[in-house]
Amino acid sequence: MDSAYDDTMSAESERIIPNIKGFLHPSSIALVGVPRGIKPGKVFFLGLLDQGFDRPLYLVHPQAEIIDGHPTYRSILDIPGRVDLAIIMSPRESVPGILKECCAKKIGYVILYTSGFSETGNKQGVEEEENILALARSGGIRILGPNCMGVYSPASRLAPFPFMPKESGRLAFLSQSGSLMNLFVNMCAGRRLFLRYAVSYGNSCDVDFPELLAGMMDDPDVRVVCSYCEGMDPGRLRGVLAQSRGKKPLIMWKVGRTDAGSRAAASHTGSLGGKETLWKSLFRQYGVIEVFDIEEMFDTVQVFSFLTLQGQGRIAVLSGPGGPAVSAADAVETSGLEMASPGADTMQSLRELLPSTGTSVCNPIDVGLGASFDLRLYLETLEMLMEDPGIDCVIILGGGVSDEMNEQYVQGLIDRKRRSDKHIIAIAYPGFIQNEKILVPLYESGIPVYPTPERAIRAYARMMQYQRFIRSLT
Amino acid sequence: MDSAYDDTMSAESERIIPNIKGFLHPSSIALVGVPRGIKPGKVFFLGLLDQGFDRPLYLVHPQAEIIDGHPTYRSILDIPGRVDLAIIMSPRESVPGILKECCAKKIGYVILYTSGFSETGNKQGVEEEENILALARSGGIRILGPNCMGVYSPASRLAPFPFMPKESGRLAFLSQSGSLMNLFVNMCAGRRLFLRYAVSYGNSCDVDFPELLAGMMDDPDVRVVCSYCEGMDPGRLRGVLAQSRGKKPLIMWKVGRTDAGSRAAASHTGSLGGKETLWKSLFRQYGVIEVFDIEEMFDTVQVFSFLTLQGQGRIAVLSGPGGPAVSAADAVETSGLEMASPGADTMQSLRELLPSTGTSVCNPIDVGLGASFDLRLYLETLEMLMEDPGIDCVIILGGGVSDEMNEQYVQGLIDRKRRSDKHIIAIAYPGFIQNEKILVPLYESGIPVYPTPERAIRAYARMMQYQRFIRSLT
Repeated sequence: MDSAYDDTMSAESERIIPNIKGFLHPSSIALVGVPRGIKPGKVFFLGLLDQGFDRPLYLVHPQAEIIDGHPTYRSILDIPGRVDLAIIMSPRESVPGILKECCAKKIGYVILYTSGFSETGNKQGVEEEENILALARSGGIRILGPNCMGVYSPASRLAPFPFMPKESGRLAFLSQSGSLMNLFVNMCAGRRLFLRYAVSYGNSCDVDFPELLAGMMDDPDVRVVCSYCEGMDPGRLRGVLAQSRGKKPLIMWKVGRTDAGSRAAASHTGSLGGKETLWKSLFRQYGVIEVFDIEEMFDTVQVFSFLTLQGQGRIAVLSGPGGPAVSAADAVETSGLEMASPGADTMQSLRELLPSTGTSVCNPIDVGLGASFDLRLYLETLEMLMEDPGIDCVIILGGGVSDEMNEQYVQGLIDRKRRSDKHIIAIAYPGFIQNEKILVPLYESGIPVYPTPERAIRAYARMMQYQRFIRSLT
Repeated sequence: MDSAYDDTMSAESERIIPNIKGFLHPSSIALVGVPRGIKPGKVFFLGLLDQGFDRPLYLVHPQAEIIDGHPTYRSILDIPGRVDLAIIMSPRESVPGILKECCAKKIGYVILYTSGFSETGNKQGVEEEENILALARSGGIRILGPNCMGVYSPASRLAPFPFMPKESGRLAFLSQSGSLMNLFVNMCAGRRLFLRYAVSYGNSCDVDFPELLAGMMDDPDVRVVCSYCEGMDPGRLRGVLAQSRGKKPLIMWKVGRTDAGSRAAASHTGSLGGKETLWKSLFRQYGVIEVFDIEEMFDTVQVFSFLTLQGQGRIAVLSGPGGPAVSAADAVETSGLEMASPGADTMQSLRELLPSTGTSVCNPIDVGLGASFDLRLYLETLEMLMEDPGIDCVIILGGGVSDEMNEQYVQGLIDRKRRSDKHIIAIAYPGFIQNEKILVPLYESGIPVYPTPERAIRAYARMMQYQRFIRSLT
């Protein structure tokens, strides 16, 4: 693996031309091996029904004539029409035979859900996976998997699980883990953050992360890419990063970085995790944004999806309670950002507006807990900070003492946001607005919301670091 | 400040004898300057009413005869009975006069809510604070504050805010910020984690963090101490840490560590933040557990409150989804903990129990998503891991596909926990059990719950680090 990485020249010179569109927008699908009854593999069928897949859909099962009221074909070869994509969930031993039928039927794309291949770590599993790949290549078939959940593409009404959102957005998620794909897509939907695609690629014997990434980087409908990866060929990744440098943000949650994690990755998707330092230097060189758990990924995706690159990262912290504001100031400095220095005019206006005790007009601007009873103190302070040319981003932590006041507060933030391109980030701190219903208009207006200022600041710092990278390219 | 710290010998030789009991368990209280109408200072009165304070309570106001239906005294000197504790929320200019009356009335303890003193940063404020301290000392009065919310002590029915929990527990929280005290106490209550005391000490002109800490360390009813601090005399802190070394865990969220944070701390509570490296070395020497935001403090308090010190920190990760399990293995190694090696017997039993594909019997033990339909896979795996002598802690991430199954799953964890002293930590991952009602029995049974395995592992690592510190003392 290290040698593949060192061999960077050849990897970079070999441009990867992604050939994955057939997975994302198939004209017809065959579901091969749909189980009878409620079994895990059933989710593909339920997902397509739930999305209302409106093109030809064929069920294939060697015995069953009817599954849940739907007619089935005994073999792929019995299907009358053309098939673009086959999703195979049949038992492992039957997969080679099915693949041969796919070749005969001239199916271009196969998603292989079936597991028990290289991720088992045993010789037989590895050999069977190699055999499958050889079979596919002989018929010109591209394979996603094995041991994967495949593709979520709501614009094409394609989902591998039921109850996934029908709305399509500008985010893409490439996930080696199928369950994480589902979890993360639903988590994002809670913030009114929708995806253009999510792809679970499992053992990636053929289509791998670098090729999927190249596809997402080329796709004009994708604005931000995030990913959960266990392992891959770093030389191929480097090639794609080099050819797409600066095109759009790539957020990577790369696991299997330690010995323990690497062993776990091997038995999950047969991946080689690889050395921590290797990934670190690769990421730094190409401006890849690193995250280390699902919360960090979610926090980072929010800031990149809702905010635009601009300004110099000079932050004003506006808070009712003083404690979290002091900690936020620490976090700003620790994260390599800058606490803004409000201008003399702003300071004077703040002094006139705010009560003289229990408040502070430095930055952080502590408007005092009395502001919870008098929202004007929050909103007029916000107005002054947004007008100050020395401030790029206002992080605001507050709220009123009733749902009604909180709705007014939220509306005040939204109104102010509409009149400016500057960044506003809202904090729903413990004890302040926790009612999700009240927060939804913020998401819908593109105002990111975090549970603590420290988490907001860490995410914002990642965006500013990416911005420095982008600016360094020009 | 640095010089005070360097002067460690004299600080350590000067044993601090805490004299704070009068604040925590007063026999009678005078509320001086209770505002008419709804104003911030009103919360003290509302808090005492809400807790059902059942000893003499006197309201004092220079003009009002009746406030909210309660009779008032025009002066402290008019109060007929003895007064243990005065809580003063009067305007700043009237404070010296009131303190003189407190001296005359031989009141031993004063909580000074009033702000506008040293935290303003101006000469007048600093001098007025010095003047107040001199006045108090002349009459033998101990002062908490100014610019503080004082004491929450539910066993004595004392609270500075309404709607604080009535239940008393074994945790103490010392908070320089009053609003954080309220927020954090309520946050803990959501986890059925109750406090013996919380103290907000503001500018701490007299009673300071080291003295409060000495009191908590001496108190047999307190098992764990956590704190939010902006600044203090590190020499005095060192003295208390030395005299209470190894007595009980102290979790510190120390802010004002950076230049920006230090400036913010100065204007919030007039504190000197101080140098990062100074605090780091002090904390390391005395086994103080450091945290950096409210979530980390909450995570850490949970593990120390619910679990007992034992074992060697050898962790088994048991998960339905494979992705988070791989990331958890990385987090274990990154945190300096150890992934347990299950014994050959355990491995054999796991192989017999679990389906052969889509699972992994290494550690992390990936029971597959099918376990959500068959809880036996989670619970029997848990049983095997708990029986393995090579495992000290099982982190379990899972759940069923319905509320009813989740209730069974939760009950299974509780039943297993009852039969062993080993640690079980539950993860309520996004997409798994999120319904708070279903989780409550876990809290009540002393099973900590975290949103991600990474956060659980970071908290657990802090506990294991403290355990190594404790064991190094003997």
